[in-house]
Amino acid sequence: MSLPALTLESAYEHLKKVNFTMCNLDVAGAKKKHGDALLWCNLGNPQGVGQKPITYNREVMAAVTLPSLIESEAISKTARARAAEINDCLPGHSSGAYPPTAGASVIREQIAEFITARDGFKAESGDVFMANGATEAVQNLMRLLVKQDGDSIMVPCPHFPLYTGYLQYIGATYASYQLDETKAWDVQEAELHRVYNEAIEQGHPPRGIVVINPNNPTGSVLSKESLTVLCRFAHAHGLPLVADEVYQRNIFEPEQRPFIAVLKIAQELAAQGECEGLQVISLHSASKGLSAECGRRGGYMHFHNIDKKLVSAFDDILSMGCPNIEGMVAMSAIVNPPREGDDAYDKYQEECGSLLSALVRKAKMVAEAFNSWEGMSCVQPAGAMYAYPKIEVPPKAVAAAAAEGIEGDALYVNELLDTVGVVVLPGSVFGQMPNTHHLRMTILPDEKELAVVLEKWAVFHKEFMAKYQ
Amino acid sequence: MSLPALTLESAYEHLKKVNFTMCNLDVAGAKKKHGDALLWCNLGNPQGVGQKPITYNREVMAAVTLPSLIESEAISKTARARAAEINDCLPGHSSGAYPPTAGASVIREQIAEFITARDGFKAESGDVFMANGATEAVQNLMRLLVKQDGDSIMVPCPHFPLYTGYLQYIGATYASYQLDETKAWDVQEAELHRVYNEAIEQGHPPRGIVVINPNNPTGSVLSKESLTVLCRFAHAHGLPLVADEVYQRNIFEPEQRPFIAVLKIAQELAAQGECEGLQVISLHSASKGLSAECGRRGGYMHFHNIDKKLVSAFDDILSMGCPNIEGMVAMSAIVNPPREGDDAYDKYQEECGSLLSALVRKAKMVAEAFNSWEGMSCVQPAGAMYAYPKIEVPPKAVAAAAAEGIEGDALYVNELLDTVGVVVLPGSVFGQMPNTHHLRMTILPDEKELAVVLEKWAVFHKEFMAKYQ
Repeated sequence: MSLPALTLESAYEHLKKVNFTMCNLDVAGAKKKHGDALLWCNLGNPQGVGQKPITYNREVMAAVTLPSLIESEAISKTARARAAEINDCLPGHSSGAYPPTAGASVIREQIAEFITARDGFKAESGDVFMANGATEAVQNLMRLLVKQDGDSIMVPCPHFPLYTGYLQYIGATYASYQLDETKAWDVQEAELHRVYNEAIEQGHPPRGIVVINPNNPTGSVLSKESLTVLCRFAHAHGLPLVADEVYQRNIFEPEQRPFIAVLKIAQELAAQGECEGLQVISLHSASKGLSAECGRRGGYMHFHNIDKKLVSAFDDILSMGCPNIEGMVAMSAIVNPPREGDDAYDKYQEECGSLLSALVRKAKMVAEAFNSWEGMSCVQPAGAMYAYPKIEVPPKAVAAAAAEGIEGDALYVNELLDTVGVVVLPGSVFGQMPNTHHLRMTILPDEKELAVVLEKWAVFHKEFMAKYQ
Repeated sequence: MSLPALTLESAYEHLKKVNFTMCNLDVAGAKKKHGDALLWCNLGNPQGVGQKPITYNREVMAAVTLPSLIESEAISKTARARAAEINDCLPGHSSGAYPPTAGASVIREQIAEFITARDGFKAESGDVFMANGATEAVQNLMRLLVKQDGDSIMVPCPHFPLYTGYLQYIGATYASYQLDETKAWDVQEAELHRVYNEAIEQGHPPRGIVVINPNNPTGSVLSKESLTVLCRFAHAHGLPLVADEVYQRNIFEPEQRPFIAVLKIAQELAAQGECEGLQVISLHSASKGLSAECGRRGGYMHFHNIDKKLVSAFDDILSMGCPNIEGMVAMSAIVNPPREGDDAYDKYQEECGSLLSALVRKAKMVAEAFNSWEGMSCVQPAGAMYAYPKIEVPPKAVAAAAAEGIEGDALYVNELLDTVGVVVLPGSVFGQMPNTHHLRMTILPDEKELAVVLEKWAVFHKEFMAKYQ
């Protein structure tokens, strides 16, 4: 046998099938040209572009790690009390011990209380399974749902490519249902049936359906009607409904487009005798929302109507690892914030409030700009941290892109990067209707910088459209 | 289609094949009987049984989380400087941003320097990939090595069941090579060839070979001869050699049984023109050693002689998630401890020294006790945190166990738990030669409590042997 033994050819057979490249932008070139003026609007990574952490969250985490802080005046009483409560429930009263596989008991209880208060239906801590970020939860869940190679999971289009990439990695596939851009990215019932039937015909039986709400990359928040359609569809076809709700805290138009948990809709329907037994698996994260603690890797999944035998077998699998304690504490801080009267309350409210109101202003600002340009339109983001404008890329630009072996939106995004110095991602990374073009930009950077960039971008856009007329 | 859709039957096909149950002991019953006197010697979870964390490690972690501590006199200057250095290298200078997939650059460099200093051969930070604990690294690695269903990985017997459990989960299998108990659990060359050929014959081609050194569950440290045999064998058969070295810091007889990294042996052989190109993948963890930060989930793997194309494809897969920052910082604290002259140095030395010397005394104490009892013998642990004594379970006891559907060692362990109130695990969890019986106990609890338990255990042992004579 000849060495070396382990190569790309001899390794795991599905390794090469995965397409998770977020984009091939010439960022190095742009850095050289634009230096520090380069504006990063490519990743949902708030603290990576200057967002400050919420003080209370960090205080709780630090005091769990260094219990001497619990006796210190350096941090808020609220945080000290919460850290003490968490440490008390841990094995050996130490954050250095292995926590239970499903998460620290007191934090699972806090999560159940949070869900109960949010939806008005009682949630049980035993149904909560914590993870190293919602990403790990998604991966474990996809592996659980897919029975065998070639099975599929239904995912929205556009969508964050974690689902599709991981499904390819485990030898499964996906069937994407298109969201309706003309209706603020809502769900179309006929489209669900079409995609389901097509997947069955092609020998890729769906094993579950994913909804991402608020959505990444569109920044849309689904209507109650859309969520009801999804519940009825999932129930009719016997599919577990996976509700990726990691952006639930970032809601910009709470009156017109409130966040409603899939779990709540499912239970309301069941209370009316409809969709009984519908299986819902909900995901939440410490990386998103206003806390934005991406580096902590905290998240959870919550099981509804899942057979106890399956939950127990799944728990056995999870027991081969466990979630990290700081990610759990970050999640705890999010679901158990300071209450009125707590010494950390005012600062917490002020920090969260100013982050949220800035997002609301920025969502409006970018949508208004895009909608005022010829050949560009944008559903105003109602949540999350993204805008997903549509670009009418001229046929000549599409042809020029094709000559380079890229999509029309990638050409636009590359030229935008070079000319204006703003990093965004082409819609082809997330999926879009054939012959349409989009880009995803985050609305995370500083408002003033964003405003300056939009002015330059307007000029670029006009020139791009003229150039390829 | 009838609901519910997702059941144990409809879920992932390999879910039910996994055997990772550590043991089915009646711990609830024992708790009732023995109360707080119950001695937990079942899990390698030091801080779960009262071990105190190393102060310096916790200070660095807390200051990365709460940067205001970097300006505070409450913690050591050393920790403050180290935390500042880490925060400076993070995206957005924030531990709340997504860290790079492979780990924070400055920590990967510290790890490379640690390996270089340890082995005397230059390591590169680009070959270091951090993970949410060595467990996650093991899982990602097994998935990478196994090309397709039915392939095998060679693992030692006895071994920690993470490898076998995870291999079952991904549809692969394992081929175990027996360590030689009569030679302090060293590796037998003929056994490696026998197992390899058998796996090939049975249609389970080995895709890699694992060595665990120091070993869990035996507490043994492999001789240089054993490690050389492994390198030559792996090279001859073109197998990547996975070196699980998470216990490398816990060495009890550094003169007679020093820890030598597989990577060092491989490079020494290569320098002599032997085993050139041998692929070594080494694992380390923040959960073990003296730091014992199990809850943090920190660890890394280091690639040696692995094709860059494969490393790049693997990096793409890893980019679907990322390691948590606190686990990384824990790992940093371990590979970059206080140096002479640092203000944290003396305390650090004292804390580590007293933990290690207690382990050395306890290893001797338990082995001496076991070796003085009739029908029990024990290779004195030379490292890690376990003893793995052999019990001559009388045939009558084996028959009584069989009548209950359990192994003879499980019967012993159950009766020990009930009578003495000490929780240990039967050898059948870890693997053992047919018709031999063992148990694994940790040597983590307090010395005095351990001494008291051993006295009671001696009485129990005598009675057990007499009862089944």
